[in-house]
Amino acid sequence: MRAAINQAKRGRNIGEVPIGCVIVYEGKIIGRGYNKRKKKKTTLAHAEIEAIAKAGKVIKDWRLEDCDIYITLEPCQMCAGAIVQARMRRCIIGCRNPKAGCAGSILNILQNDAFNHQVELTEGVLEEECSAMLTDFFKDLRARNAEIKKAGKTENEERQDL
Amino acid sequence: MRAAINQAKRGRNIGEVPIGCVIVYEGKIIGRGYNKRKKKKTTLAHAEIEAIAKAGKVIKDWRLEDCDIYITLEPCQMCAGAIVQARMRRCIIGCRNPKAGCAGSILNILQNDAFNHQVELTEGVLEEECSAMLTDFFKDLRARNAEIKKAGKTENEERQDL
Repeated sequence: MRAAINQAKRGRNIGEVPIGCVIVYEGKIIGRGYNKRKKKKTTLAHAEIEAIAKAGKVIKDWRLEDCDIYITLEPCQMCAGAIVQARMRRCIIGCRNPKAGCAGSILNILQNDAFNHQVELTEGVLEEECSAMLTDFFKDLRARNAEIKKAGKTENEERQDL
Repeated sequence: MRAAINQAKRGRNIGEVPIGCVIVYEGKIIGRGYNKRKKKKTTLAHAEIEAIAKAGKVIKDWRLEDCDIYITLEPCQMCAGAIVQARMRRCIIGCRNPKAGCAGSILNILQNDAFNHQVELTEGVLEEECSAMLTDFFKDLRARNAEIKKAGKTENEERQDL
């Protein structure tokens, strides 16, 4: 999770919502990713999708069986779906996303018996640190936006919702 | 949907499960995709994800608002999630996927009020044609596998589950 947090920080350093992810296979990190949605201008650039793309190049198979994914934030519908589709073994999350999380908060896509694969789930790993990164990011963003407004400039619509 | 079927046929011609997709914005197709999961060796190469990546390059935004996505088969968890995440307006599907579909069959990710966006849904467009492509593909695959078995050769594990 420490490596996933480092990825999240790389995102934060370029103004992205700090969410990071690594994929581990046989004790080695084979995929890393951080949120680049603004930079890449596509919703597909979530941390998990970036890491899954990289891991696939290492494993050379669309199936990432026996792989474990560490994510600083509970995955959205798309990313939880990708984790199931890739047949990953285990998902380890830092903090929950009560507004959009799909590892139990809104839905539990990872562990739905109706699908042909279920993913083991561990949560709350370095939870406070993962959560604080997001809280601080949005606090800074609000302060920046308030300053821009105060200065009478046109505010860039950030809409940093996850 | 005719254009989406043409995409699916391109997939079939290279031995992929025939699923195709197009994205329409202001009456024009801005993204096309077909399933390339085997070729690209990543679960991310579903038709919808391929098309969303292309549409994003045209729109130059991670939001594909006012875009409609036409898919020959009901989307999986990952793709339904990507459609919601991209804030697409409408999803038009050919046939249902009772084993894994997430536009109503197993879950309805497109229209869950707990998420911050819901997608309009139209189904059954050119349904028979979309369905027949898949039925024929799997029939041929089974016949080919039976022949390989009969000939005593080692069968390539295809596991073409969607």
